[in-house]
Amino acid sequence: MGRLSTLFAPSRVAVVGATDSDGSVGRAITRNLLDSFEGEVHAVNPYKESALGLSCHDEICDVEDAGGIDVAVVAVPPDVAVDAVRDVGEAGIENAVVVTAGFGETGGEGAARERDLREVAEEYDLDVVGPNSLGVMSTPRGLNATFGDVMAREGGISFMSQSGAFVTAVLDWAAERDVGFKDIASLGNKAVLDESDFVAEWGADPDTDVILGYLEDVGDGAEFVRTAREVTQDTPIVVVKSGRTDAGASAAASHTGAMAGSEAAYEAGLEQAGVLRAESVQELFDYAQILSGQPLPDGDGVAIVTNAGGPGVMTTDAVGDADLSLAEFTEDTKARLGEVLPDEANIYNPVDVLGDAPAERFDVALETVLRDDNVAMAVVVACPTAVVDFEELAETVAERQAEFETPVAASFMGGESGTNYREILSEAGIPSYFDPARAVNGLDALHRYDEIQSREYAEPERFDVDRDRASDIVERAARRETNRLGVEAMDLLDAYGIPTPEGEVVDGPAEAERVAEEIGGEVVMKIVSPDILHKSDIGGVEVGVAPEDVRDTYEDLVVRAREYQRDATLLGVQVQEAVDLDAGTETILGTNRDPQFGQLVLFGLGGVFVEVFEDTTLRVAPVSEAEARDMLEDVDSTPLLRGARGREPIDEDALVETIQRLSQLVADFPAIAELDVNPLVAAPDGVTALDLQLTIDRNS
Amino acid sequence: MGRLSTLFAPSRVAVVGATDSDGSVGRAITRNLLDSFEGEVHAVNPYKESALGLSCHDEICDVEDAGGIDVAVVAVPPDVAVDAVRDVGEAGIENAVVVTAGFGETGGEGAARERDLREVAEEYDLDVVGPNSLGVMSTPRGLNATFGDVMAREGGISFMSQSGAFVTAVLDWAAERDVGFKDIASLGNKAVLDESDFVAEWGADPDTDVILGYLEDVGDGAEFVRTAREVTQDTPIVVVKSGRTDAGASAAASHTGAMAGSEAAYEAGLEQAGVLRAESVQELFDYAQILSGQPLPDGDGVAIVTNAGGPGVMTTDAVGDADLSLAEFTEDTKARLGEVLPDEANIYNPVDVLGDAPAERFDVALETVLRDDNVAMAVVVACPTAVVDFEELAETVAERQAEFETPVAASFMGGESGTNYREILSEAGIPSYFDPARAVNGLDALHRYDEIQSREYAEPERFDVDRDRASDIVERAARRETNRLGVEAMDLLDAYGIPTPEGEVVDGPAEAERVAEEIGGEVVMKIVSPDILHKSDIGGVEVGVAPEDVRDTYEDLVVRAREYQRDATLLGVQVQEAVDLDAGTETILGTNRDPQFGQLVLFGLGGVFVEVFEDTTLRVAPVSEAEARDMLEDVDSTPLLRGARGREPIDEDALVETIQRLSQLVADFPAIAELDVNPLVAAPDGVTALDLQLTIDRNS
Repeated sequence: MGRLSTLFAPSRVAVVGATDSDGSVGRAITRNLLDSFEGEVHAVNPYKESALGLSCHDEICDVEDAGGIDVAVVAVPPDVAVDAVRDVGEAGIENAVVVTAGFGETGGEGAARERDLREVAEEYDLDVVGPNSLGVMSTPRGLNATFGDVMAREGGISFMSQSGAFVTAVLDWAAERDVGFKDIASLGNKAVLDESDFVAEWGADPDTDVILGYLEDVGDGAEFVRTAREVTQDTPIVVVKSGRTDAGASAAASHTGAMAGSEAAYEAGLEQAGVLRAESVQELFDYAQILSGQPLPDGDGVAIVTNAGGPGVMTTDAVGDADLSLAEFTEDTKARLGEVLPDEANIYNPVDVLGDAPAERFDVALETVLRDDNVAMAVVVACPTAVVDFEELAETVAERQAEFETPVAASFMGGESGTNYREILSEAGIPSYFDPARAVNGLDALHRYDEIQSREYAEPERFDVDRDRASDIVERAARRETNRLGVEAMDLLDAYGIPTPEGEVVDGPAEAERVAEEIGGEVVMKIVSPDILHKSDIGGVEVGVAPEDVRDTYEDLVVRAREYQRDATLLGVQVQEAVDLDAGTETILGTNRDPQFGQLVLFGLGGVFVEVFEDTTLRVAPVSEAEARDMLEDVDSTPLLRGARGREPIDEDALVETIQRLSQLVADFPAIAELDVNPLVAAPDGVTALDLQLTIDRNS
Repeated sequence: MGRLSTLFAPSRVAVVGATDSDGSVGRAITRNLLDSFEGEVHAVNPYKESALGLSCHDEICDVEDAGGIDVAVVAVPPDVAVDAVRDVGEAGIENAVVVTAGFGETGGEGAARERDLREVAEEYDLDVVGPNSLGVMSTPRGLNATFGDVMAREGGISFMSQSGAFVTAVLDWAAERDVGFKDIASLGNKAVLDESDFVAEWGADPDTDVILGYLEDVGDGAEFVRTAREVTQDTPIVVVKSGRTDAGASAAASHTGAMAGSEAAYEAGLEQAGVLRAESVQELFDYAQILSGQPLPDGDGVAIVTNAGGPGVMTTDAVGDADLSLAEFTEDTKARLGEVLPDEANIYNPVDVLGDAPAERFDVALETVLRDDNVAMAVVVACPTAVVDFEELAETVAERQAEFETPVAASFMGGESGTNYREILSEAGIPSYFDPARAVNGLDALHRYDEIQSREYAEPERFDVDRDRASDIVERAARRETNRLGVEAMDLLDAYGIPTPEGEVVDGPAEAERVAEEIGGEVVMKIVSPDILHKSDIGGVEVGVAPEDVRDTYEDLVVRAREYQRDATLLGVQVQEAVDLDAGTETILGTNRDPQFGQLVLFGLGGVFVEVFEDTTLRVAPVSEAEARDMLEDVDSTPLLRGARGREPIDEDALVETIQRLSQLVADFPAIAELDVNPLVAAPDGVTALDLQLTIDRNS
């Protein structure tokens, strides 16, 4: 168990601000604790003699053996809340749950109060939930330290939510369904404890089968990725991240004041963290139910057993929509199905046991397909008929699932009343919905989690690079007047082993000639100025410059730059080896810094593919080799690098290595706010970075 | 009312095959009719004296005033079913419902039986439902002419299903919800009456608010598009078309023996028909509920009123996912919200009335936003709190919705029991779900149907073309040894006014020289052979041929073709005006014939866009100008035609006209099985078809 285990399994809890005033938060918490908590409850309130039968102490330190209290719930007015938390720390208590609102979410004064709270927590090494939290719950000890109305039922789901209201909604809804919880935490403003802390705790908790989260932001993305990767090796994490859309993100920002960050970064970060994302509340709990109830599949093949052709087709469509396949039965299976089923039955997948099938016929069909090694999962789809007894069928399905330990989902397409088939399935951990698509979607989540669990997160490779030289370039750049660098910073790439054309930035025609001579043959010449972003547009780039024209071209480029902007800072002219563009494909490799997840690396094919199709992919840096390779798979235009339309395939290993090296560079230098290698020409014999744009953050 | 009105509102029904044998279909139908039908029921069965208290007639013509019977339900063994239907027709009855199975779905003998049934129906002008149907229902007269267990509740949904089992499932499920039906038809094998007939009937039925369908195929796509377009001007049609995915399509084919056709054709056809497609059963009924309960919105702006920030953000995400926008409130609205709500409330959209809001505060907020002209729809999202009474809130929401006649959906995020708020909302036609995403998705369906209802389906323009010349070319082609034509058929395009380069197919070097001279300047020369598909690959195309080289090039091309395939049929060499490819963008315009929807027209940009990105769009021909323009909008790469990356925009009008002309051509000549204009070069000064491939179907 993790550090927070006493928070969820306390023996003694104190309510600071306990009261019996009608309608108050303090009363609700005290009442909830008295209702079901199996440990001691103490009340602290200097203005009250007693509250709901408990005698009130003036201060928390007045409680006998105050240091032995496991959790203090703080429900006092905002102006005295920080002091109350200090008293908790002073008393030697380790966990505080601050339900008081009026902190960061109100801005100004509240934000200052939240900083104070954070300092106090640090001073006393105090684990603080909230502030602005609904509280916490844990079912094994009947702990309800919230001011909500409903206590959770016992179960294997641990749930954290950045919205307290959503916790009350979920509890109310779950109370009528077979949804039980281990622990619940309303995260509030996450001043001290955040999603990573709870994920770590529940990952170490043997009684938590699934971790669910409703999140509006992730405070420290890198920390979350690290923690979640470890936890998801054993325990699935499913998250609704709200503020996914532009509209949602700005609503989230105005609601919590949280910097929501970009959806693209969350998508990359949560995927790399091994977190399953649910798009809606329904999906969140559908996933939780099947992940806590069913084993993981050994493959992606689904067998469908149904008594109706039409619903069988709908179910097959759902399999096609998911990342699953329809299992191909072995000859043995088909032969056996042929023996046990009537002639008119369909022995191919989806298996149609026909409308006159009683539960026993479903049973033999299910048993037969579960025995097939090609079947990793099964879904039983039953329409109501005069002959099929749903209760009997539910028992059959539950027994066969237990026997074969193969994941099964159900769609009993009928009314819910009159039989207790749902209960039978639910007790067996088998989800059942009217809509077969939901059943299949649940199986898809199992399969996706199986993929996550079998991931091996390789450490990003550290290449042997010239870090000192890169450091010099970055530092020099940070001292310059402008923080934007162009082709003059190509050495940075060179220092990290990313191939660049031979060349130098020169500041006179004679030197230009010398460099051109060293390179030999025709060269490319580009004006170098932080004030000129689109060099080509002003005639600032000349390709195929013959040796005898180098001097004149130098002068021409300078003149054009001056004509464009008289006071432009000119850093010189780059004289560069000519690269055969036709032999390769232009790609773009970029990075930028996300407030939550840190350095991100972006890859795509140049030109229309990035500009019109926005066909790019993103990863949190540093990336491992496997992740870099994955980036290529993510991009729709990658076939163009692999010989589509008669081209020669490019050197993918070189491209993958360059992605890793660039990711190492930006991970090493957080001061690099943005870096675009554009184009990075990918050719059959390797890659070459032709140009770059770089922005340095002087404040980091 | 349509032709089928007596089918659903009969006064007298006869059951052919009525019986009281336990577990028989004939008994179930007779019992169901006796249970609730408000008219007369007659029994026909030569082997029985009586059935369930009805005396049995030997033949249907023995029933008194047999010609006055409105509907005969035929439930006899398959070998006598066609004769029974003949007797029905002979008696002068207009409607037969054939529940007997063992027809087309069993192949062989059954298929022959189905052909016989169709002939009998035609002979007697008989409306036949089925065979292999569960039967029909209609609630106003209590008509249950099915062998299912459950009778539908009364309501405004008329529902057709190609799966009988799905009808029983839906009825069982709907019985516990507030879902009522007007008519239900189990379509069975659709030997005579098909989806178009029922759509037409219900479109003319004032008591049908929404038409729902579960379809595995559409028999006559063109007929369905015509009918549905008319009906959807007044009555929404929502369809689950199963067999959407490859896996689903092959499952459907094996289940019904139906040719499922391509999903791309269905997507285009159903969209052009104005049909809303639901992806799942849940969506089908969610759409039905809101379409039958709420008015159509006057715009796409959604107002959200909630008592909880987090769920407000989730709802905003759902708006972002849908084709809707978050309404921007007027200054007046914001000022008024500022007056009526507490200071901490959010007066911007989503409106947060705060966790301590009673129903009255929701009410003033809702009233204020509904008054705003920018608000076309509203969704009320409520989390359970100590102060909000869901029942009171439901009344409030229902009243305001009725007052403003603005569509409203609700997400009351709590338990369902203990209050009857759901009933209140349901009676007001306001859908309510735990998950706010479902509520928003319903509003999206309303908005989409509003767009459909306001469509104006222009007649496709008929251009003045040389149809006789085209007809000659097609006929000549059909007489040839091979049915594949290439560039030699360019005249076909010319006859329909599609610009082609000047040129001719010649069969000797001298003639080649003559044609080149007429054209003037350099020409393009291509070998013409039905046996050589990829001319460029074998050196069969020469561009930029100077006048003096035309003779030699002719010989070279013929030699290369012979080297490639000694016995290839050579039709000659095309000598063509050179077209500046760089000035334009290569597009592809293709057609093919779909078994359900007939001629389809496809458009996309050439090269990687079609081959790698599959960035194409499809329409059922003939297309109107508006539809042709729409095709351009559908394609992601269209910006490349409109000046992306510094290109000059192409002549869109010319491209749109060419799409229409090609669509007219294939609509005029059903014998054209496939036609690809590739490339069609689109340039700023017009379009030019450079090459084509054509396949003629000799059998049509």
